[in-house]
Amino acid sequence: MNIKPLGDRVVIKVLESEEKTKSGIVIPDTAKEKPQEGKVVAVGSGEVVDGKKIPLEVKVGDRVIYSKYAGTEVKLDGEEYLILRQNDILAIVE
Amino acid sequence: MNIKPLGDRVVIKVLESEEKTKSGIVIPDTAKEKPQEGKVVAVGSGEVVDGKKIPLEVKVGDRVIYSKYAGTEVKLDGEEYLILRQNDILAIVE
Amino acid sequence: MNIKPLGDRVVIKVLESEEKTKSGIVIPDTAKEKPQEGKVVAVGSGEVVDGKKIPLEVKVGDRVIYSKYAGTEVKLDGEEYLILRQNDILAIVE
Amino acid sequence: MNIKPLGDRVVIKVLESEEKTKSGIVIPDTAKEKPQEGKVVAVGSGEVVDGKKIPLEVKVGDRVIYSKYAGTEVKLDGEEYLILRQNDILAIVE
Amino acid sequence: MNIKPLGDRVVIKVLESEEKTKSGIVIPDTAKEKPQEGKVVAVGSGEVVDGKKIPLEVKVGDRVIYSKYAGTEVKLDGEEYLILRQNDILAIVE
Amino acid sequence: MNIKPLGDRVVIKVLESEEKTKSGIVIPDTAKEKPQEGKVVAVGSGEVVDGKKIPLEVKVGDRVIYSKYAGTEVKLDGEEYLILRQNDILAIVE
Amino acid sequence: MNIKPLGDRVVIKVLESEEKTKSGIVIPDTAKEKPQEGKVVAVGSGEVVDGKKIPLEVKVGDRVIYSKYAGTEVKLDGEEYLILRQNDILAIVE
Repeated sequence: MNIKPLGDRVVIKVLESEEKTKSGIVIPDTAKEKPQEGKVVAVGSGEVVDGKKIPLEVKVGDRVIYSKYAGTEVKLDGEEYLILRQNDILAIVE
Repeated sequence: MNIKPLGDRVVIKVLESEEKTKSGIVIPDTAKEKPQEGKVVAVGSGEVVDGKKIPLEVKVGDRVIYSKYAGTEVKLDGEEYLILRQNDILAIVE
Repeated sequence: MNIKPLGDRVVIKVLESEEKTKSGIVIPDTAKEKPQEGKVVAVGSGEVVDGKKIPLEVKVGDRVIYSKYAGTEVKLDGEEYLILRQNDILAIVE
Repeated sequence: MNIKPLGDRVVIKVLESEEKTKSGIVIPDTAKEKPQEGKVVAVGSGEVVDGKKIPLEVKVGDRVIYSKYAGTEVKLDGEEYLILRQNDILAIVE
Repeated sequence: MNIKPLGDRVVIKVLESEEKTKSGIVIPDTAKEKPQEGKVVAVGSGEVVDGKKIPLEVKVGDRVIYSKYAGTEVKLDGEEYLILRQNDILAIVE
Repeated sequence: MNIKPLGDRVVIKVLESEEKTKSGIVIPDTAKEKPQEGKVVAVGSGEVVDGKKIPLEVKVGDRVIYSKYAGTEVKLDGEEYLILRQNDILAIVE
Repeated sequence: MNIKPLGDRVVIKVLESEEKTKSGIVIPDTAKEKPQEGKVVAVGSGEVVDGKKIPLEVKVGDRVIYSKYAGTEVKLDGEEYLILRQNDILAIVE
C-alpha cells in the first residue's frame, strides 16, 4: 500500500469482530461492540523527543489492540483504515 | 500469555473481591465495589523519558492495587484483562 | 505562489472529493463529506524543539491526508487554501 | 505492613479528628470535618525527573498534613489507608 | 512608531478587506468577514526557549496572514493596531 | 512553631484587615474583603527544577501579599494558618 | 515604594484613560473602557527557566500596555496598584 504515516503514527486495518457469539447466535450489526483489534499495515518514521528520533515499537504485520475511538478513519482504494498514534496502541498480540 | 503491552503499560488479571462480607452474608453482584486489586501478567519495555528508557518498577507476578476505573478492559481467549499504565498502579502488595 | 508559512506550518490546496458515488449517482453538495485530502503547495522552515530546528517531513507536491476541521482556511488570489500545522497531517499518500 | 507504594507515592494512616470540641460537646459523625492529618506508614522509591531519581522528603513515621480529598482510599487487612502522591502532602508536623 | 512589543510579540496594522466583491457590488460593513491580513510595524526581541533567545521569523514591513480573533487590539495615536504572538501568524505573503 | 512545609510551600499567618475604614466607621465582618496579607512563619526546602533544588525567595518573617483564595487553611494549636506555594505569593512588602 | 514582586512579576500604577473624547465631550465613568496602560513601579528578580534566571525585559519607569483583566489589584498606602506577570505585558510604549 502506498501510504506513509507521519511521525509516530501507524496505519492499521481493523479486524472485524466475529459475527457469532460462542453459542452460535448471529448478532445483528448494531449490537456488536466496536472492534479493538487491527493489523499494522504502515508505520511512521518515529517520534522526535528532545531532538532524538525514537523509532516505533510496532512494525508492519503486528496484530495490535488499540484504544476504542482512537485515531481517524480513512478510506483508501475503497477499503477502511485507521490512522492512529502509537500511543493509542495498548499491546501487541502474538 | 502472548500479549506484549507497549511502553509503560502493564496487563493485569483483576482479582475478584470476595463475595461475602465478614458476617457471611452473600451480597448480590451489583452491590459489590469495583475491584481494585490485580495480578500483573505482562509488562511493557518501559517509558522513554528524555531519551532514556526507564524500566518499569512492577514485574510479572506482582499483586498490585490500582486506581478505580483506570485502564482499558480487554478480552483475550475468553478471559478479561485490564491494560493500564504503570502510573495508574498505586502500590505493590506483598 | 508567494506565500511562506511560518514554523511547522504548511499550505495545502484541498482536493475535491469526487462528485459521484461508485454507482454514478450525482450527490448534492451538502451530502458530501468534508474533504480530507490535499496537495502541499508551501512548507514552513521547520519547528524549533530544544533549540534545534527540525525540518518538516512533508515537501511541496506531496499529496496528504489531514485531520478533519484542522487548520485555517484562507483565500489567496480567489483560490481557497488551508494553512495547517504538520502535526495535523496524518499521512502522505503516494 | 507489606505494601510498597510506587514512585512518588506514600501510604498514610489517617488520624481521626478528635470527637469533642473544646467545650466538651460530642459532635455527631456527620458534622465533623474530613480529617487532614495522617501518619506515613510506607513511602515509594522516589520520582524520576529528567532521568534522575529524586528521593522523597517524607519518611515512615512522619506526621503530615495533606490536601483535602487527595489520594485514593484503600482497605488493607480491615484497616483504612490513604495512598497519595508526595505532592499532595502540604507539610510535616513535628 | 514608538512601541516595543515584548518577547515573541509583534505589532501589526490590520489591512482592510476590500469593500467590493469581484462583481463590483459594495457590501455593507456588517457582512464583511473579519480581516485576517496585516502589515508588521514592530517586532519583539524573540522568545526564550531552553535559555536561548530565538529571534523572530517575521520582520517589520512583512505582510502577514494571522489567525482570526488572535491578539489584543490597542489604539495608539488614534490608530488601531493588533499586538499578537508570532505563533498566531500563519504565513508571510509576498 | 513545629511545622515544616514540603517543597516550594510556605506557611503564613494571615494578617487581619483593619476593622475601620479611614473615616472611622466600623464595618461589619461580612462586608470586609478577604485579607490578602500575611507573615511567613515557615518555608519549604525549595523546588526541584531540572534536577536542581531552587531555594525559595521568601524567608521567615517576610510580610507578603498573596493571591486571593490561594492555598489551604489549616488549624494548628487553635490558630489558623495558610499553606501555599511560593508561586501564589505576589510580592514582599517591606 | 517598599514592595518587591516575586519572580517574573512587576508592580504597575494604572494610568487613567483620559476622561474626554477628542471632541471634548466628558464621558461618564461607566462608559470608559477598562484602562490598559500603566507605569512600572517595581520589578521582580526574574524567572527561573531550566535552572537559569532570566532577567525581566521591563524596568522601573517603563510605560507599558498590558492585557485587559490581567493581574491582581492591590491597595498599598491607599493607592491602587496592579501586580502582574511580565508575560501579561504586551509592549513598552516610548
